[in-house]
Amino acid sequence: MNTTHKKKVVVIGGGTGTFTILSGLKKYPQLDISVIVSMMDDGGSNRVIRDEFGLLPTSDLRQCMVALAGSDSDETLRKLFTYRYESGVGIAGMTFGNLFMAALTDIYGGDQKKAIEETCEMLGVKGKIIPVTLEKTNLVATYDNGKQVLGEHDIDEPCKNVGKSKIVDLQVFPKISVNKDALTAIRTADMIILGPGDFYTSILPNIVVDGIAREIVNSRGKVTFIMNLMTKYGQTIGFTASTFVSEIKKYLGKDPDIILINSVKKIPASILKKYEAEKAELVPDDLKKTKMKIVRKQLISNKVYKKSKSDKLIRSLVRHDSTKLAKAIVELL
Amino acid sequence: MNTTHKKKVVVIGGGTGTFTILSGLKKYPQLDISVIVSMMDDGGSNRVIRDEFGLLPTSDLRQCMVALAGSDSDETLRKLFTYRYESGVGIAGMTFGNLFMAALTDIYGGDQKKAIEETCEMLGVKGKIIPVTLEKTNLVATYDNGKQVLGEHDIDEPCKNVGKSKIVDLQVFPKISVNKDALTAIRTADMIILGPGDFYTSILPNIVVDGIAREIVNSRGKVTFIMNLMTKYGQTIGFTASTFVSEIKKYLGKDPDIILINSVKKIPASILKKYEAEKAELVPDDLKKTKMKIVRKQLISNKVYKKSKSDKLIRSLVRHDSTKLAKAIVELL
Repeated sequence: MNTTHKKKVVVIGGGTGTFTILSGLKKYPQLDISVIVSMMDDGGSNRVIRDEFGLLPTSDLRQCMVALAGSDSDETLRKLFTYRYESGVGIAGMTFGNLFMAALTDIYGGDQKKAIEETCEMLGVKGKIIPVTLEKTNLVATYDNGKQVLGEHDIDEPCKNVGKSKIVDLQVFPKISVNKDALTAIRTADMIILGPGDFYTSILPNIVVDGIAREIVNSRGKVTFIMNLMTKYGQTIGFTASTFVSEIKKYLGKDPDIILINSVKKIPASILKKYEAEKAELVPDDLKKTKMKIVRKQLISNKVYKKSKSDKLIRSLVRHDSTKLAKAIVELL
Repeated sequence: MNTTHKKKVVVIGGGTGTFTILSGLKKYPQLDISVIVSMMDDGGSNRVIRDEFGLLPTSDLRQCMVALAGSDSDETLRKLFTYRYESGVGIAGMTFGNLFMAALTDIYGGDQKKAIEETCEMLGVKGKIIPVTLEKTNLVATYDNGKQVLGEHDIDEPCKNVGKSKIVDLQVFPKISVNKDALTAIRTADMIILGPGDFYTSILPNIVVDGIAREIVNSRGKVTFIMNLMTKYGQTIGFTASTFVSEIKKYLGKDPDIILINSVKKIPASILKKYEAEKAELVPDDLKKTKMKIVRKQLISNKVYKKSKSDKLIRSLVRHDSTKLAKAIVELL
């Protein structure tokens, strides 16, 4: 198939939601997939990569690589890339993929971009994986109580004194240059997909990088927002669907063109109970008919996610279904 | 070429000397190469692999893999396998290859043999890499002053109170079973090559494993000993070539059939001075005409070895030349 006839989709995010949608989209050969990945993660394995190796965080990139790995790529290498060590002082909790890229970057004299490209080639990645920036920076959230929190991990798993507050401003510090490849991908896209993913720590971290929002607004591509399934304590507590949309508009400068929202309301009680303990709730669908196209679909996965023992981060239990999500996207193209 | 017409050579060792000879032998397609690798290493990266991951040491295996990696194998993967981390708490000093095999073993539910085979396949290894045992054990050296030292690393870099003593007995503790694949390789070999390598910590650790010496003695293959270039403080201090040979006989139960010994005596003064500081000397060639075939050749490499900053182990500076060594071996077949 000639690539000029392929539909260009750009996924914007990072994290497990992005992994989900990419895994689904990969099965459609008529798509030309790019993914713009937030580079502000500083939790878990990434902290070591940032602080001890002095590199850009690689966990989100690594997840995208695995999601887009070619079916003809080495099965063992793919398994290794998702592997997290459970033993070893200083090693337990690290992912193989992060250590792989740290070694490769050093071999290439510190050229992390080359290391990323080379890793994509080894994994036979179908699509383009684009770090939103190639410079080191951090996320800074300002809350309605005036408090500020520096660093994605602490924003994602906040301490108690910000837990009930809302984020009123999100920025990067220090200011960094956008990766030009990200702008090019957005400019030529048929569809720009925001999410699914943690709102303030996966989606917006890309949009607040100078140049990204403007390029999205100017792009001919339709902006599709995958509505979050659950609210998150310390971030989106009390949010309804329309709160999410108005927050997008605030940072992006325009409404999304399409909202893709889950219509299933039945979640097993045992799981909702776990969320209750984290003060998280299903996002109420209060979207009214506007110029935006609102698409309601059954988008939830039936599988309950289990995380590895050595993974110290909080992960979502209720997740989008990769296949249903991709199908819905393709129908919108 | 039909494998039944290939000459079968079995290299016995582990460590950098084995890397050297394998790299040379690999260039001869008429050879069917096996290497039996000592599994008692407990220094550097291997200590972590043994103590923290509870696995067999992999550094020597890894070196053999890289030496025998197919020329068509992924260049990046080969580079990674020789990479040693310089950063990261608990990670600096570790080799990528060891972390790779630790992850793979865990993925395969603790089956280290399968992990080794899979790694060989990924690297396109030409030949068979055979751990001398698949069980955990240690080396124990007894010195002429009655002292005993447990562990390959401490025997290799001994503390002062054994430095001037000689090793009068070398064993493994606990007793372990030999890897049957090692016996099969020896039984069917045309030539069995001992070395090059550290005498008490690379070559003999294989021979003292129950079953190996007997199989070598009974094999129709010619036993070729590559004479050490330098003596080593705490191990072979004061040894001449004939001392090495008589020590081989003591542990093996017979003389080697062939001795391959370096004839170059000119070593740059600057290098000899470094060795002097370590109380190491060129091994004097005092071999007299016997039933053994003595082959004198120029076998020394002109390159001076430089080690990485994060490598904490003592390494040889004067080394055998890979090409010259392999050529000499092939001429003897």
